[in-house]
Amino acid sequence: MSTDTGPRGRRSGGAEGRRSARLHAVAEKVPFITRTMTPLEVLSAEGLELIEHNAETILEQVGIDFRDPDALATLKAAGADVDGERVRFPRGMARSLVQATAPGEFVQHARNPANDVRIGGDATVFAPAYGSPFVRDLEGGRRYGTIEDFRNFVKLAYLSPYLHHSGGTVCEPVDLPVNKRHLDMVDAHMRLSDKPFMGSVTHPDRARDTVEMARVLFGADRLERDCVLLSLINANSPLVWDATMLGAARVYAEANQALLMTPFILAGAMSPTTVAGTTTQTLAEALAGMAYVQLVRPGAPVVFGSFASSMSMQSGAPTFGTPEPALVLYVLAACARRLGVPFRSGGALTASKVPDAQAAYESANTMQPTLLGGVHFVLHTAGWLEGGLTMGYEKFVLDADQAGAWHAFARGVDLSPNGQALDAIMSNGPGQHYLGSAHTLANFETAFYRSSVADNNSFEQWELEGSRDAAARASAAWRRMLAGYEPPPIDEAVDEELREWVQRRKASFPDSNV
Amino acid sequence: MSTDTGPRGRRSGGAEGRRSARLHAVAEKVPFITRTMTPLEVLSAEGLELIEHNAETILEQVGIDFRDPDALATLKAAGADVDGERVRFPRGMARSLVQATAPGEFVQHARNPANDVRIGGDATVFAPAYGSPFVRDLEGGRRYGTIEDFRNFVKLAYLSPYLHHSGGTVCEPVDLPVNKRHLDMVDAHMRLSDKPFMGSVTHPDRARDTVEMARVLFGADRLERDCVLLSLINANSPLVWDATMLGAARVYAEANQALLMTPFILAGAMSPTTVAGTTTQTLAEALAGMAYVQLVRPGAPVVFGSFASSMSMQSGAPTFGTPEPALVLYVLAACARRLGVPFRSGGALTASKVPDAQAAYESANTMQPTLLGGVHFVLHTAGWLEGGLTMGYEKFVLDADQAGAWHAFARGVDLSPNGQALDAIMSNGPGQHYLGSAHTLANFETAFYRSSVADNNSFEQWELEGSRDAAARASAAWRRMLAGYEPPPIDEAVDEELREWVQRRKASFPDSNV
Repeated sequence: MSTDTGPRGRRSGGAEGRRSARLHAVAEKVPFITRTMTPLEVLSAEGLELIEHNAETILEQVGIDFRDPDALATLKAAGADVDGERVRFPRGMARSLVQATAPGEFVQHARNPANDVRIGGDATVFAPAYGSPFVRDLEGGRRYGTIEDFRNFVKLAYLSPYLHHSGGTVCEPVDLPVNKRHLDMVDAHMRLSDKPFMGSVTHPDRARDTVEMARVLFGADRLERDCVLLSLINANSPLVWDATMLGAARVYAEANQALLMTPFILAGAMSPTTVAGTTTQTLAEALAGMAYVQLVRPGAPVVFGSFASSMSMQSGAPTFGTPEPALVLYVLAACARRLGVPFRSGGALTASKVPDAQAAYESANTMQPTLLGGVHFVLHTAGWLEGGLTMGYEKFVLDADQAGAWHAFARGVDLSPNGQALDAIMSNGPGQHYLGSAHTLANFETAFYRSSVADNNSFEQWELEGSRDAAARASAAWRRMLAGYEPPPIDEAVDEELREWVQRRKASFPDSNV
Repeated sequence: MSTDTGPRGRRSGGAEGRRSARLHAVAEKVPFITRTMTPLEVLSAEGLELIEHNAETILEQVGIDFRDPDALATLKAAGADVDGERVRFPRGMARSLVQATAPGEFVQHARNPANDVRIGGDATVFAPAYGSPFVRDLEGGRRYGTIEDFRNFVKLAYLSPYLHHSGGTVCEPVDLPVNKRHLDMVDAHMRLSDKPFMGSVTHPDRARDTVEMARVLFGADRLERDCVLLSLINANSPLVWDATMLGAARVYAEANQALLMTPFILAGAMSPTTVAGTTTQTLAEALAGMAYVQLVRPGAPVVFGSFASSMSMQSGAPTFGTPEPALVLYVLAACARRLGVPFRSGGALTASKVPDAQAAYESANTMQPTLLGGVHFVLHTAGWLEGGLTMGYEKFVLDADQAGAWHAFARGVDLSPNGQALDAIMSNGPGQHYLGSAHTLANFETAFYRSSVADNNSFEQWELEGSRDAAARASAAWRRMLAGYEPPPIDEAVDEELREWVQRRKASFPDSNV
């Protein structure tokens, strides 16, 4: 994109050399982000206590519907007030259950241990977008996703140094039968990437298949010891957990695997329009879901999830990147910290159909709270378009580039002597530029985050190169990435066993599209 | 953009009605943003003390060049160590001078008092971009700016409910002679808008002209009492204040008018590459400049300014929306708070040539720190493209829309009973949507920020309407705005006097392009 006319680095020895080496180390690929700043708080402790108090009032007086007989029996046995499908929790019960046994943070292991991710504390983990039936690229436009698209996005996430996780349903492979596509999806995550990934949740049987495949990949006894699967369980808001989701959650919890218990809320439709009302309801729903998971298997890793969007009050359409869901995120991140469990929310969300200025503004407006609020697990970090209906190739590249920038931001301000640069300023003096100063030469390689898709050239140079906008540059980028893809090595015996297991399983029941 | 199929509001009486009225009031046009959150801190008090200590070391041991004999005399008389153009400040001297007399916050008055802005404290004021020689729109492409473009941007800022300020050189009217264009620029701000505005700084004589015109508009005695002009004085970093800027600053300070004393830094070229080094140098430069202003006229309003960008270490080009300048902003905002003066920084900055995803991502990445860091005066809120070389019509509309969203965010979380919405959740119950609930109907009109350019429609509807991206929609928006523009009323005698003054002044010296 540009010629090398800038300053070139020289390595110096001694302290300067070690410093330089350290800077290179931090600029290298890391398995997850370690945040150095205190999360931004938008409510005082009193405000948060009020939200918590109201959530307990809802759990106690309204209750939550659990549309699953096993869950009802489990909750009743634990002391909840069960009336039909309605479960009312004595004040403090759900919270106590969660705090008693849910881990404050945990590691999700990848088949490549260098890619293990820590979920909780000061760590932030980026995963791609999830669940789109459509895909889009600049040349091909919008179309239904296929298993080839799915594999492409697994490859792109594998290739990005700034995505830590392979995700789950990165797009729906609608060319495969509904009741078997999970096998190919999990297979793709396991084989085409060596980053951690998510399990199927669309049916308890599919969750079981995921667990079995994980046992093949990681070894049967490993799952009792380690978390290797993290799966997304959505509440059916307001105040309902349904049978499919609870069934899948139970399978994973019994296998000691992690769950994102996530109320999915379009405020104004599935919750009140207000920030405080939406956070209160989300907290109540999540507490109930997490408490149930802890009853199924005390100590199973569980993450407090929130997906909240606003809506267009003209059309009823969901809207993204607006200020109100950003406030919801900040409040709920604080609630999760107070509860003592990891938090999932955020992402590069947008209602835009294409990777344009709307898409980027809206995405940034959610990613900023995601990082500044201290979200631990970020679904939808890259690729999301059109309210989640479409996974975009160019959007993926643009978002992943932004994810890279967050790595630099999260490191915070370097106050080492090299960072202070006092000697550099003292020896440089008024009116002298720093381009050739020893300090600049020692630091320039890692001084600033380098975007792979931003064009910072002169207008004339940009015009000469075709006046391409960000989407056009991103289109070239993902094609280049896929062309250079090579799969990570996999143990031959495991590869063979996995292949056989999937073939056998596929042959064991007929295709169906329900 | 969409049909009204969503819920419609009904006003109810009593508390609900008053609440509804209050919501409407806050959603209406406000003259500036009042932030309700504590600013985000990225450094501890110890870290900030270190930066301050180092800045004092630079002021004491290296010093700052003041390339103006009057300034040197003034600073020497005040006790600074003056050696040629070099001014060294005894440790703490500059800080003490600023803290002794500079106001912690002040009001800049507009000719319409409803548009007076508060600068400092919990207020944030949005002004358009400043200083571009080029303009760009979707149809006309990139071209040199003219006085017609200038007037268009003054009109657009006047028409936007989310820009609080008319700005200064919203673009360079390069069709006018260099030595007279300030007269037409100031005239446009005075006549086509009734929001506060900025003065000319390109020559002390032009600053004097601005002051004289303000005396005509506001009354000669008014300036002694009130701040009606706010002007941008850039340092010539590193560590230099030049004669033109100091001369203009002196004119305004003597007239008791406000100044943004702003080191303009491309880190790596005009400061060290590091965040701590850049903040240290900026603080030293700003302290020296502000101290001088306080010596010229104790109590003249002064704002600590910072413009800092990173650079591409491959090409040497400035880069925007990157993580390092965001950190610089957070640190310097904290330094300004500790010093006790208002802070200017931020804006919707980008290196992109067009209003694409790069432009929006980079702009959001600077506007987020701008608000969350607690910036008081925001130049470049709308329109900036191509590192400030170009003022974009579509970018202006997209940025101004984002400025609107910040009004909603800054209000924070409503914890009133209506905001808590506990009754709404209690009475709604599991599985029931909220679209028709009394609470939703009472709140929907002001529940969520409504973007004027985002498209949240279905893909099918969007396609039916021409598959327009954000830039295309923004193009229609600014044309619509300009077509509906009507100038604010102006007193006829003042109008006449102003016209005569400008004509007389223009006739008093020959045109020149230097």
